[in-house]
Amino acid sequence: MAERPVAIIAAEAPVRPRPTGFPPDLAAKLEGREKQPLGDVFGLRNFGVNLTRLAPGAASSMRHAHSLQDEFIYVLEGRPVLVTDAGETQLEAGMCAGFPAGTGDAHRLVNRTAGDVLVLEVGDRTPLDRVTYPEDDLVGEADEAGRFHYRRKDGTAI
Amino acid sequence: MAERPVAIIAAEAPVRPRPTGFPPDLAAKLEGREKQPLGDVFGLRNFGVNLTRLAPGAASSMRHAHSLQDEFIYVLEGRPVLVTDAGETQLEAGMCAGFPAGTGDAHRLVNRTAGDVLVLEVGDRTPLDRVTYPEDDLVGEADEAGRFHYRRKDGTAI
Repeated sequence: MAERPVAIIAAEAPVRPRPTGFPPDLAAKLEGREKQPLGDVFGLRNFGVNLTRLAPGAASSMRHAHSLQDEFIYVLEGRPVLVTDAGETQLEAGMCAGFPAGTGDAHRLVNRTAGDVLVLEVGDRTPLDRVTYPEDDLVGEADEAGRFHYRRKDGTAI
Repeated sequence: MAERPVAIIAAEAPVRPRPTGFPPDLAAKLEGREKQPLGDVFGLRNFGVNLTRLAPGAASSMRHAHSLQDEFIYVLEGRPVLVTDAGETQLEAGMCAGFPAGTGDAHRLVNRTAGDVLVLEVGDRTPLDRVTYPEDDLVGEADEAGRFHYRRKDGTAI
């Protein structure tokens, strides 16, 4: 087992490589988003924590809902808009939101400001999770090991 | 199902009642610690998130290790000291640490400053977790529902 740090400065954690192999219509929606996994640095396996930076104009993801995994976000800097089935909610530093599994209510954060947004994201890794995207031609499914596989809604591979 | 908020100001979340029924030697170690559960507000079940405030002199808990549950902390304000088997590590705002299940390495945060410490704590809710406290006469065990039951190390009820 590799030697693990006791603690780190979150902003200095390695940036996760961009997802590759996505077709241009989906890849374009992830532009300007940068994730620094924090939990993985310490060997956590039951849930992931990311420090996620959204450049002006960027979004946290396509609007999506998880069948089995809970999600939580805490705003550290900036003023993102949270988009859910309820509409749009203006967030700012010190605000948080949670997205329980299985409601079907899809969410994402959008940065419409001229400055960066910085959020902590937490999500558990329950296997066999299914991710639905009401506004995009995409479906995600986690296998037994929790690794996500993506396809188009008609089943076409991505 | 009760109506749930879309987002909240974390600092305005309800404070969790203090644990009751602990004998004085253990209760004294939790003085000055205040937890505001954040994940529960949104109905999250797979993991918990607390906004935890440590007054000067307070600690996050007795030093402890989980058998099955991962833990993660992110420092929002102040300068806590993280105590682990490796010794003491000075933390400050923007630093984080993770405590993977099953290592036996026990941890806690201590506030030795004159100002408050504010941290986000994340922990999953894997059932049948066992919590060991190397410096205290205490053992915690989670049941199938994830609810913790405590006893002394000789089995005496608390």
